[in-house]
Amino acid sequence: MFESAELGHKIDKETYEKEVPPLREALLEAQIDLAKLAKFPVIILVSGADGAGRGETVNLLNEWMDPRFIQTHGMGEPSDEELDRPMMWRFWRELPPKGRIGVFLGSWYTWPILNRVAGRTKTADLDQSLERARRLETMLVDEGALILKFWMHLSKEKQEKRLKILEKDPKTRWRVTERDWEHYKLYDKFQAVNESVIRHTSTAEAPWTIVEGFDARYRSLTVGKVILDAVRKRLDEAGKKTTEVSAPPPLPSIDKLDILKTLDLSQKIDKKDFQAELEKYQGKLALLTRSPKFKDITVIAMFEGNDAAGKGGAIRRITSALDARYYNIIPVAAPTEEERAQPYLWRFWRHIPRRGRVTIFDRSWYGRVLVERVEGFCSETDWMRAYSEINDFEAQLVRHKIVVVKFWLSISKDEQLRRFKAREKIGFKRFKITEEDWRNRKKWDEYEHAVCDMVDRTSTEIAPWTLVEANDKYFARIKILKTMCRQIEAAMKNNK
Amino acid sequence: MFESAELGHKIDKETYEKEVPPLREALLEAQIDLAKLAKFPVIILVSGADGAGRGETVNLLNEWMDPRFIQTHGMGEPSDEELDRPMMWRFWRELPPKGRIGVFLGSWYTWPILNRVAGRTKTADLDQSLERARRLETMLVDEGALILKFWMHLSKEKQEKRLKILEKDPKTRWRVTERDWEHYKLYDKFQAVNESVIRHTSTAEAPWTIVEGFDARYRSLTVGKVILDAVRKRLDEAGKKTTEVSAPPPLPSIDKLDILKTLDLSQKIDKKDFQAELEKYQGKLALLTRSPKFKDITVIAMFEGNDAAGKGGAIRRITSALDARYYNIIPVAAPTEEERAQPYLWRFWRHIPRRGRVTIFDRSWYGRVLVERVEGFCSETDWMRAYSEINDFEAQLVRHKIVVVKFWLSISKDEQLRRFKAREKIGFKRFKITEEDWRNRKKWDEYEHAVCDMVDRTSTEIAPWTLVEANDKYFARIKILKTMCRQIEAAMKNNK
Repeated sequence: MFESAELGHKIDKETYEKEVPPLREALLEAQIDLAKLAKFPVIILVSGADGAGRGETVNLLNEWMDPRFIQTHGMGEPSDEELDRPMMWRFWRELPPKGRIGVFLGSWYTWPILNRVAGRTKTADLDQSLERARRLETMLVDEGALILKFWMHLSKEKQEKRLKILEKDPKTRWRVTERDWEHYKLYDKFQAVNESVIRHTSTAEAPWTIVEGFDARYRSLTVGKVILDAVRKRLDEAGKKTTEVSAPPPLPSIDKLDILKTLDLSQKIDKKDFQAELEKYQGKLALLTRSPKFKDITVIAMFEGNDAAGKGGAIRRITSALDARYYNIIPVAAPTEEERAQPYLWRFWRHIPRRGRVTIFDRSWYGRVLVERVEGFCSETDWMRAYSEINDFEAQLVRHKIVVVKFWLSISKDEQLRRFKAREKIGFKRFKITEEDWRNRKKWDEYEHAVCDMVDRTSTEIAPWTLVEANDKYFARIKILKTMCRQIEAAMKNNK
Repeated sequence: MFESAELGHKIDKETYEKEVPPLREALLEAQIDLAKLAKFPVIILVSGADGAGRGETVNLLNEWMDPRFIQTHGMGEPSDEELDRPMMWRFWRELPPKGRIGVFLGSWYTWPILNRVAGRTKTADLDQSLERARRLETMLVDEGALILKFWMHLSKEKQEKRLKILEKDPKTRWRVTERDWEHYKLYDKFQAVNESVIRHTSTAEAPWTIVEGFDARYRSLTVGKVILDAVRKRLDEAGKKTTEVSAPPPLPSIDKLDILKTLDLSQKIDKKDFQAELEKYQGKLALLTRSPKFKDITVIAMFEGNDAAGKGGAIRRITSALDARYYNIIPVAAPTEEERAQPYLWRFWRHIPRRGRVTIFDRSWYGRVLVERVEGFCSETDWMRAYSEINDFEAQLVRHKIVVVKFWLSISKDEQLRRFKAREKIGFKRFKITEEDWRNRKKWDEYEHAVCDMVDRTSTEIAPWTLVEANDKYFARIKILKTMCRQIEAAMKNNK
């Protein structure tokens, strides 16, 4: 795997000085076109051996191109705010928007490799990490990102030589740390893990480029040319959709039976029982979220449902049991300009809370497979891949021990009509029924189909959907409160 | 000062239950109008005595209004990312956008009060903190914010009583901590400091509302009504500009002499000397920023200048001496949608770096007193107040021991013409001269006037402007590098 990167590649000074100026100019022009087009971001990962010139390469890129439009991130020790969230959060918050270049020195591969070499994890753990990295990259590419992954390689002998050279020069001595020499002693171990990483994650859409790191001129020219070719090629292709795949047809509806139709929407609670139950479960939720153990818990609750199904009312019954300092509600509406310049899930990632907090999404990332699908706001490919992207997203949350609670509030078509009409009568502004509500209603069957697909494809063991029979508001609210309490309790027990 | 809040205000249950429903409805409607209009944010500070119902009030507001459009922030212990930045950064990051309500439980008053009572600071320090708070609030109000400050008061006797009542009930016992009792013992000390705080910061634009905190019904109704009246009043006034003041006329230009005209633009360095100096000062900058002491330093460098004065080239000469992982360049262009929904300085606050970092602004917050003034993008009042807002902003940075380096790159009108023409000749896209450049050039004198005003009003001892004679690029680049080195060195010495 590393054969070509141990051949002793070398570029003489004369060649280098002849080749650099046109390369720089071409890179700059590509960068300007990238910014003007602003259709896709470029994500560059720089990994590899200590002493193989990773930092130098990154600095050189900043010198060659316009550093104002490159964001470089040295992913060192995470901050407390980062540790409080799923591992990938720190990468999401630094993703470059469309039209920009983001360089990551240290990537989602760094810690899995270090942990495996140090024996803190097993091969199976490493494989899982790699699988997750691969899925993340596939998603980013599907969202339009150009990902370039560089692996700076040194043979064992060359690594020793490089570290010694750096140590000798007073100008570079500070760069060689004890840790570098420790890593050198573990060369063979690293090599085995590195190879496995590269093998598993060199995909068609985001392959690794292995670069021999010893000769600075060779390394620099190689990296520069790879970037130039890739960006230029993508710019030339821009506009063409290259990742279009045809989605398999959704499950046909043959016998008119579906998961929503199996719900018993006639379930009810009378007002007196409701009051008693409400007090009981709000009290319980209040105690649970105020217990010292809750400091280690994060809760993300998410509400989807038919228009007028009572999401707002249900949310208020939850929040009135919570301490306002520790919850946050995210009403999901049209994305902002900054959000549109990022992958679809970015605008949800940015709201992932710290531990000890509750975040409630009023509508959510499922918009893609519901309204965007039905209204044709995104392509079939986009919403088809969203199912697995969402599952990956939720799996990351759950792996970080976040309690993910997902509610679908279901009402019948007749009940919706009744509520629309009632709302039209009371002039109360908050409940104004809009044209859009009536329009959506006309597509009732299509929405129902989309909801059933969504439940089938995203109700997972780790993040199951709770379907809430919501024709009776009392019944719905109690079911929701109960579910919240049960899931939080379960998480507290597991955390012991 | 607290007399009216020790009268034993009390509302009976019947009155309360009669008054609450219409109040809630009116609050909700106001909130909806606020969101629809989206012209100003509402900032609510809730401060006061322990046990006076601050938390309960905040929770109640969330219950009465639509919690989806209220953001509540309990400003407890700052995170490491927050500690690494000026104190106000954590408030800036949580400011509500236009149309939303932000509730702060614990505010910019909390720590100054606690520090003074604990004797960690002197009266003079407290006064300074209050002065800063007042200036911040003035700025927010000028930017359109509605600020409501509530002080929940309890007499000494009532505080003891409240804490005991809370302790007796198993449901509220957890809320009374040892710290509450410690604070109770310091009641008189707190009272003296609180009074001084309220006296100094009850301004016409953001007065304190002191509320007797003992009776929950009285407290709740009072707060609810104050908020309703204030929001409603402001909504009714919206559109009318209420803070318009007439700015004093700028310094007249009588003898054609100004600070820019005193610059000797003929200063030059020849190429050979430039190469030597460049190497020297880049080397120095490289060593300085890589020294262990730099971990405690933050550098914010800011570039303004005539069009084609060479900002980009100068920035690249700096960054090529830096480690790409630790610097960030912010090219300042038109604000995004999220930025437009916030006070003017918000989009700069969000980029304030952590310690050990360098952030370079390519154009800056001075846009308001330069391009926005000259082109009439903001009112005279807005740019006139910007001078002191900017001085306050920079003072906060400097107080946090951030090194603030400000460059104005000055070229002559002839030199600009020469460069424009040269750029038009070389086809290189990056240097395309736009219509706008030619338009700006026509307003040369107006810009010059604005620059001189800016320097006069914002070149402070703590954050002085460095005027750079930039007709000769070599000379300019060396002067800039030298200045950077000198200021960083000075900061390192002071930090000892």
